Amino acid sequence: MDVRAYVEANAAGFFDALKQWLAIPSISGDPRHHGDVARSAQWLAAHLRQTGFPIVEIWPTGEPGAPGLPAVYAEWPAGESPAGESPAGESPAGESPAGEWPAGESPAGERPAGERPAPAVLVYGHHDVQPVEPLDAWDTDPFTPVERGQQLVGRGASDDKGQVLFHSLGVRARLAASPGGDAPPVTIKLLIEGEEESGSPNFAGLLRRERDRLACDVIVISDTTMWAADVPSMCTGLRGMVDGQIDLYGPESDLHSGNFGGAVPNPLHVLTSMLAALHDEQGRVRLPGFYDKVAPLSAAERELFGRLPYDEKQWLAQAGSRAAAGEAGYSTLERIWARPTAEINGMWGGHTGPGPKTIIPHEAHAKVSLRLVAHQEPAEVQAALREFVAAGTPPGIEARVSFSGPGVRPCLCDISAPATVAARRAMERAFGTQVLFTREGGSGPEAALADILGAPLVFLAVGLNSDRFHAPNERVQMPLLLKGAEAAAYLWEELAAVW
Amino acid sequence: MDVRAYVEANAAGFFDALKQWLAIPSISGDPRHHGDVARSAQWLAAHLRQTGFPIVEIWPTGEPGAPGLPAVYAEWPAGESPAGESPAGESPAGESPAGEWPAGESPAGERPAGERPAPAVLVYGHHDVQPVEPLDAWDTDPFTPVERGQQLVGRGASDDKGQVLFHSLGVRARLAASPGGDAPPVTIKLLIEGEEESGSPNFAGLLRRERDRLACDVIVISDTTMWAADVPSMCTGLRGMVDGQIDLYGPESDLHSGNFGGAVPNPLHVLTSMLAALHDEQGRVRLPGFYDKVAPLSAAERELFGRLPYDEKQWLAQAGSRAAAGEAGYSTLERIWARPTAEINGMWGGHTGPGPKTIIPHEAHAKVSLRLVAHQEPAEVQAALREFVAAGTPPGIEARVSFSGPGVRPCLCDISAPATVAARRAMERAFGTQVLFTREGGSGPEAALADILGAPLVFLAVGLNSDRFHAPNERVQMPLLLKGAEAAAYLWEELAAVW
Repeated sequence: MDVRAYVEANAAGFFDALKQWLAIPSISGDPRHHGDVARSAQWLAAHLRQTGFPIVEIWPTGEPGAPGLPAVYAEWPAGESPAGESPAGESPAGESPAGEWPAGESPAGERPAGERPAPAVLVYGHHDVQPVEPLDAWDTDPFTPVERGQQLVGRGASDDKGQVLFHSLGVRARLAASPGGDAPPVTIKLLIEGEEESGSPNFAGLLRRERDRLACDVIVISDTTMWAADVPSMCTGLRGMVDGQIDLYGPESDLHSGNFGGAVPNPLHVLTSMLAALHDEQGRVRLPGFYDKVAPLSAAERELFGRLPYDEKQWLAQAGSRAAAGEAGYSTLERIWARPTAEINGMWGGHTGPGPKTIIPHEAHAKVSLRLVAHQEPAEVQAALREFVAAGTPPGIEARVSFSGPGVRPCLCDISAPATVAARRAMERAFGTQVLFTREGGSGPEAALADILGAPLVFLAVGLNSDRFHAPNERVQMPLLLKGAEAAAYLWEELAAVW
Repeated sequence: MDVRAYVEANAAGFFDALKQWLAIPSISGDPRHHGDVARSAQWLAAHLRQTGFPIVEIWPTGEPGAPGLPAVYAEWPAGESPAGESPAGESPAGESPAGEWPAGESPAGERPAGERPAPAVLVYGHHDVQPVEPLDAWDTDPFTPVERGQQLVGRGASDDKGQVLFHSLGVRARLAASPGGDAPPVTIKLLIEGEEESGSPNFAGLLRRERDRLACDVIVISDTTMWAADVPSMCTGLRGMVDGQIDLYGPESDLHSGNFGGAVPNPLHVLTSMLAALHDEQGRVRLPGFYDKVAPLSAAERELFGRLPYDEKQWLAQAGSRAAAGEAGYSTLERIWARPTAEINGMWGGHTGPGPKTIIPHEAHAKVSLRLVAHQEPAEVQAALREFVAAGTPPGIEARVSFSGPGVRPCLCDISAPATVAARRAMERAFGTQVLFTREGGSGPEAALADILGAPLVFLAVGLNSDRFHAPNERVQMPLLLKGAEAAAYLWEELAAVW
């Protein structure tokens, strides 16, 4: 049976399993659901054992005094036969059995031995989900997944449980289709995080702790999107981020604007002047040295971006914005994907209630975030923002700058790297058409993976922007998940072939 | 008995009466105290009748469907003898008798007749008070007035009951001291408003309705401050005001700054750019035509301001500001008193809670106020602000500008006008020293009085900036109230002399 036939024959069982998993409300951002995140990890571990992974473990995260939420680790060494059913003593306590996998389809096989060392591939995804508020904006219960035509609706359907689970179907399809039988041609490692939607606070620590076991030649990320259902594409990079808060303090308390207006520095005026100076007239960010390390967009990538069937009107409609605006000399896609930006995310100070109150306020505040591209360094950008704020602070005003954390590094994959080429071929085989390249404007923990494990990234994912990640009525296109499984199945042999 | 001797002899009775009045919590801004505002009007009316005013009336304000709070009107025609005690049927129901006035001191007299027409003078003040929150910041109950050395502490002690009441003592002192006996040399009209601390919403309407009865040659305002207890001064102007709100709308809803950052207009960026452009580098307001009608500060006034013992360090300490800042080419006092200004009073938009939320916000808002000087017109400044906002609004952003009302016109008295000269002489006689000129940076209904009644203003007041107007532990310097009574007594003959 070939890969596609296997995937199609096992689609119903796959979606039944996914629905079971989606029913577990593994909201990492809500402490009331932390037990559900643990249940979700147990469900996935049991499922991966049934899939045949010889090694399946639930990894605690965090520190003894400050525990995090569990990740799931599974490993299938190249050339090794599938494990038996979940060993006694490791099945999740108090939990119904994980999604049934058609046991009769389990490939019988022999282990290839004595071949050249196969590459190790680490697949990253996450099993926690976003909160569901506002609940009344959902048409159906977010944790009672329902099929609507070709869509499966439920929190986590696309982000990221659906895209994690297609790998287990893909592995089985690969084994079923391989003439040699039941052993994968590469070592497959899965690392499925449980805190991604909470900012991955313990992820870098986990990577460092388990660096040896996670050692790999390629990292496959399955947590992004394609251009469209009929325009398959691969993401080649995410922006990094620095986000912080600027606090300005003027007079010791609010002053009457009649008695003092026009004669003392007003922190709101200082803040507006400072932040108005954050961009020049070309829309470029004016932090000192901000562009020094920015990797220019290559002509090849600009050309590839240009092939995407982009429609600015449609994009504006999706944004709900009346106009596009940004750095001069770049298209909208280039601005979002390949150029660093600065945004004021929030601002407040003085009287914000109804009616007038004619004061000079004591303080003024702004939250700002900067999206970074390769090869900007978050720490350098933070220092530049501090320098910028200090330079824009006049006598009489005290300024403080703080950051929510060390920031997120940008990541970028080389589109001509062997792993990228292999993943693209796998996608093209699954979709039967050319696969284009995109990037994403957002930020994630992917750069930490590449940095700490020292391996290149490739993005293999079938989500769509219309999947409503983080929003009510999240959904996934069921046929695309099956294409994802198919592409994953091809990926193992494509990677083995280029290595 | 001369004026000073009369005032000193009757000081105890005066303060007893003031304490009675201060005990009535006439907070116009709090509907729960509107009954107290009515009681305060009744107390004052009874008191003015006892003082001898032949005409005393309580004037309702507002419209039949939307009644306002009562004003008190009293009139003592030039040359007329005092009225008897409060006529039956007009005494305040359910109210203890108004403050006792020493009946034995009532001057016997005859009415001068057949002389040239005496000028009519309207005294403006208000009998409502500010709220008292935060109550726990008061050392004593705000409506249980107590003497602390030479200070009388209580809400309204200085703003404005104390400064209204010194006029009744002044009238009696003038009569006691005049050789001719019991009739004032000018027609004295008192108009004591009950909604000043609530923005005088019905005051202009009342002035128009009663324009004929309020007809006067001079308006005396007793609701401002002097430079210092030992530096008596007269205010010669107040700034006007326009206050409004700017609302900017960008994308239809908050957008993810990763997916859209750097590619759509961010209303907070637009607002900061717009408001940063509100001033030029010289600290001048950049609204179109803003300075066209501004009355320049005369060399004489600058010279008089320069005589004030101003200490910038002290002023900054009072402001709680680390530095002074403002329009280039003007001193701090000139900036506050004689130059128009623009201030951002509040600003908000996007995420203002704890932690990061990396969005491009749907909307951004600012409250701004502009202080105006003679002869700027609020309506023209409002139009200029609308024009300024429209010019600063890029494609993709929708802007709205609204105003809390028609604005307040500035007022300014000519320091060489006869009424000003007369009032200054009256003050100098009371204080026995040179009286300087100041202005105030705040705004009040005084311009409406001058505009609607068509008479010049003079400011006769003895409040101090340290009296804690509108703040906890409001107080008045008792010796200064007596000086105010003395100055008021002299004022009538000074005005009669220059007319």
